Amino acid sequence: MALKNTRETNYPEWYQNVVAAADMAENSASPGCMVIKPWGYGIWENIRNIFDEKFRETGHENCYFPMFIPLSFFQKEADHVEGFAKEMAVVTHSRLGQENGKLVPQSPLDEPLIVRPTSETIIADSFSKWITSYRDLPVLINQWANVVRWEMRPRLFLRTREFLWQEGHTAHATAAEAEAETKQMLEVYRDVAENALALPVIVGRKPEHEKFPGAVDTYCIEAMMQDGKALQAGTSHFLGQNFAKSAGISFTNSEGKSEYAYTTSWGVSTRLIGGIIMTHADDEGMVVPPRIAPYQVVLVPVIKNEADREKIMAYIEKVRTALKSLLPFGEKIRIKVDARNKSSVDKFWEWTRKGAPVICEIGMRDAEGENVMVKERIRLGTPEGKKIVPIESFAAGLAKQLENIQEEMFTRAKERLQRNIRTDITTHEEFEKYFSKQSRFIKEGDKDTVAFVRGKWSGDPNSEELLKALKITIRCIPFDQSGTKGECLLTGAKDATMDVIYARSY
Amino acid sequence: MALKNTRETNYPEWYQNVVAAADMAENSASPGCMVIKPWGYGIWENIRNIFDEKFRETGHENCYFPMFIPLSFFQKEADHVEGFAKEMAVVTHSRLGQENGKLVPQSPLDEPLIVRPTSETIIADSFSKWITSYRDLPVLINQWANVVRWEMRPRLFLRTREFLWQEGHTAHATAAEAEAETKQMLEVYRDVAENALALPVIVGRKPEHEKFPGAVDTYCIEAMMQDGKALQAGTSHFLGQNFAKSAGISFTNSEGKSEYAYTTSWGVSTRLIGGIIMTHADDEGMVVPPRIAPYQVVLVPVIKNEADREKIMAYIEKVRTALKSLLPFGEKIRIKVDARNKSSVDKFWEWTRKGAPVICEIGMRDAEGENVMVKERIRLGTPEGKKIVPIESFAAGLAKQLENIQEEMFTRAKERLQRNIRTDITTHEEFEKYFSKQSRFIKEGDKDTVAFVRGKWSGDPNSEELLKALKITIRCIPFDQSGTKGECLLTGAKDATMDVIYARSY
Repeated sequence: MALKNTRETNYPEWYQNVVAAADMAENSASPGCMVIKPWGYGIWENIRNIFDEKFRETGHENCYFPMFIPLSFFQKEADHVEGFAKEMAVVTHSRLGQENGKLVPQSPLDEPLIVRPTSETIIADSFSKWITSYRDLPVLINQWANVVRWEMRPRLFLRTREFLWQEGHTAHATAAEAEAETKQMLEVYRDVAENALALPVIVGRKPEHEKFPGAVDTYCIEAMMQDGKALQAGTSHFLGQNFAKSAGISFTNSEGKSEYAYTTSWGVSTRLIGGIIMTHADDEGMVVPPRIAPYQVVLVPVIKNEADREKIMAYIEKVRTALKSLLPFGEKIRIKVDARNKSSVDKFWEWTRKGAPVICEIGMRDAEGENVMVKERIRLGTPEGKKIVPIESFAAGLAKQLENIQEEMFTRAKERLQRNIRTDITTHEEFEKYFSKQSRFIKEGDKDTVAFVRGKWSGDPNSEELLKALKITIRCIPFDQSGTKGECLLTGAKDATMDVIYARSY
Repeated sequence: MALKNTRETNYPEWYQNVVAAADMAENSASPGCMVIKPWGYGIWENIRNIFDEKFRETGHENCYFPMFIPLSFFQKEADHVEGFAKEMAVVTHSRLGQENGKLVPQSPLDEPLIVRPTSETIIADSFSKWITSYRDLPVLINQWANVVRWEMRPRLFLRTREFLWQEGHTAHATAAEAEAETKQMLEVYRDVAENALALPVIVGRKPEHEKFPGAVDTYCIEAMMQDGKALQAGTSHFLGQNFAKSAGISFTNSEGKSEYAYTTSWGVSTRLIGGIIMTHADDEGMVVPPRIAPYQVVLVPVIKNEADREKIMAYIEKVRTALKSLLPFGEKIRIKVDARNKSSVDKFWEWTRKGAPVICEIGMRDAEGENVMVKERIRLGTPEGKKIVPIESFAAGLAKQLENIQEEMFTRAKERLQRNIRTDITTHEEFEKYFSKQSRFIKEGDKDTVAFVRGKWSGDPNSEELLKALKITIRCIPFDQSGTKGECLLTGAKDATMDVIYARSY
C-alpha cells in the first residue's frame, strides 16, 4: 500500500504524495495558494493551542492588526535598501465593476496597499501611539494571521503565497530586556518543536547576511529533513531601536528623559507542518506526533456480518467510554469512531496514510472477548506494532502509550539529526567534495549522503557568494561554541574561530 | 467617572467612547481597518471557542481556503446581476519596486485577484473536486478567516473594511437535508447569542430583497440595540443548487444518476462584538457577559502602606488559589491579578470601563479579616453591587454568581427587547407616524421612542422603495407567524398575512 513515490525513488514527489495521501492540503484555484484541509488544519490548530498557552504563560496577549499596510510604510526601507523590490501582493483598486460586459478593477486607491508580508511596520505604528512612558512597557503582544509573499515556486506548506503564522511583537525599555525576550521566545520555539512536534532542532544565531532586514540579531531553530536538508522552523529577532526609530516608538524613562524603545519580533508558520511531514512521514504516508494529532486514537469497526453490527458498535461505544476521560500530555484525549460506510481495510489504510498514532480495529471476536486490536502507526507492519489487548489494560495504558510514541518519534528524529551532522570535515577541500554530492533520502546506514556539516567559518564578507556557488547556506552559529580555531571550511582561511552549521536548505 | 458622552446625550459618540474606554479596538493607519486590542480580541477568542465546540458537536470540521479569489470567479455573478459592481479590494500587482526613487506596483497579474468578501465561489470550486459520489456527502466544513468589504463609512466592529468571521459551508445530497442544516446552524447561532453573549434575538427568514445573492432562503438572528435599532447578528443561507450548478458540484446518487448537490453557508463576524457593546454597555463603559469575558474576576490589591504589600499580595495569592479550580459555565475560570504599579482607584475604574464582571478590591483589612470586597459590574454603584464577603463563601459562591450575572444580563436585555416591540400598530398611518421619529437611546419608561414594530406585510414587490423612503428595513419574517390577516403597514393594502419585524438597523 506504499505511496506512488518512496523517499528513495523520488523524494520531492514523495513529499507531495504524503500531503495528498494524508489529505492535509491541496493546490487551489488561486495560483500558489493552498487549501488546508481538515487533517492539516487540525494539526495547525493543535500547534496553535500549544504555542498560545506558552505565549500566555510568558505574559503575551493576542490581538489583531490590519492585513493591509499602506505603501508609504515601505518607503523608509526602500530608502535604505539599494534596488529595493519585493514580491508582494499589491491592492490598487477598491471596486470590481464592468466595462463592456467585462469585469475590471475600478476606483483606484489614492495609495496602494500591500497585503502584509509581516507586520513590524504597522504594529510599530500602533506601538508609537500606545507607548509614552516607561510605565507602559513592556508591551507583549502576538497575533495569529495570514500573510502573503509572492513565491515564484510554491510548494504545499513549505512555500505558498499565502500562509498562516503567528507573529509576536514586543517593546521594552532596555536592550537587555528585549534581548532576553528574544531568547526566551526562541527557547519557547525549541521547547514546542522538540516536545510537541517531536522535531529536534539546532539553536543558534543567523550570520549577518541571513538576518531579518532591520534586525540587530536573528536567532533561529533549524531542523533536519530526511533528505539531509535544513528547514528553518522558527525565528526570533532582536530589532534593537531600528523599528522604534523609524516609527517613533519613544517613551519617557524613569528619569524623565525621552528614549526609543527596544523591540523584538518572532514567528512560526504553517511551514512547520512541512517540516513535521519531512521529519516523520514514511513510505506509507504521514505519521503525526500524538501531541498534535487531530485524533490520537481511531476506532475502526470491522463488520463481517451485518447481523453483528449492533453488537460491535455497542462494544466500540464501550471502548470509547473507557478511554474518553484519559489525559495524555495532560490534555483531553482526541478519539474518532470511524463509522463511515466503507470497508474496514480501506479505513485502516486511510488512517495509516493520515498518520493517526493509534488505530484500533474492532470486530466481533474482539467484542466477545472484550479485547481491542491495537496498531501503532510508528511500528506499522512489525509484530510489536499490532497487539490484541484486553479493554481494561488498553484503557489503563493508552495515555502512557501515546506519550511513549511521542518520545520514540523524537528519539528517532534526534538520532537521525545527530548521526548526520558531520564534524570530521576540517578542510575546505573535503568540504567542497562533501557538498559536490546531490541531496537524497538518507537511508539508515547509507554513509554517502549529504546533510549538515558543523565546522569553522571565518565570517568572510564574501561568504554569501561562495555559499551560493556551492548551493549551500550557513544555517546558524550554534549557541554552543567550541572556542577552538581551525580552517574556514568555506574559504580555506586559517584560524577561523566560529563554529557554524552548513547545509542545503528548504 | 462616566464617559464623555452618555447614551442619552449622543448615542453614536457614546459607542465610540465605550470602545476606546474599554480598550477593545482602535482605528489604524490602514484606512477603514481596525486594530483589535487584547480585551476585544480576548472576547472574540472566547466567542470563537464556544462556536467551535458547537460546530464540532454538529459534525463540522475546520479548514482554510485561500483569501485571494480569481476575478473570473465573479464573472458568472456579473452575467446575472445587472450593473454588477462591488466594493472589494482588488490585487493587481505582485511586486513593489522603485521607479525614480518612488515606490510603485510592478509585475501586473495576468488575472486580478479579489480579496475574499465571502468564500462561496472558491469553496464551491474545491467542493466540485472533493465530491463525486453520494458517499462523499455531506461535506461539512467551517473556516475562521479575515474578509474584506470596502465600506465607505467604517465604524469599529460594526463596519470595517477588514473584519474577522467564521463561514460554514456544507454540501448535501438532498434539499431537505441542506435546509435542515441551514436551520440547525441558525439554531446554533440563536443558542450561542442568547446563552453565551446574553443577546436576545428574533429568529426568522429574510424577505426576498434582503436575501444573500444566490440564496434560495436566508435566515437570520436579529438583536435590538439600546437605541431601538436592529443589528443582524448572524445569517444562515440555504443556497439550493445555485452554487452547485455554477461550480459543477455534482455527484452520482445511490441510483447511479448524476445530480447537483445542495449547499448552505452561514456566518457570524466580529460585528457581534459591536452588538454586545450596544446591548450591554452603559454610561460607565463596557459590560462583558461573564461567559465570554477575557477575565471573569479581577483581583486588585489596595496598598495604602508599602509595609503591607507583602501581606496583601500573599493574601491575594491565597484568594486566587481558592478560586482557580472553579468551573463557571463548566469551564476553567479566568482570573487576573492586577499587580501593576498604578493606583487601585485607577485600576478599579479601568476594569469597570472594560466591563470585567467581578472586581475584587483587597486591602490590609481584608487580608487580616480574610474577607474580599466584591463588586459586580452590572450593579455598579448600588448597595447590592458591593459586598464584603468571607473568602470561603466568596469561593464557594463565585461560579454561581458569575452564572447569575450572565442570566441577569440576558434577562435585562430580553425585557428591553420585549418591551420595545410594538404590536399595537395596525394601520399604515400609525406606522408612518411611528417611524417619523428619530432613533434615540431608549430610557426605561420613555414611551416616545422608536424601536421594532411587529406587524403585517403584503409582500408587495415595491416594498424596497417604500422602506427606503421611511429609512427602515424589514428585519425578518419571524418563524412564529400568527396566521391572521390585517392591513399591510407598509402599503396600506388589506388582507396582508405575513407578520414581519420592521426596524431601523445598523
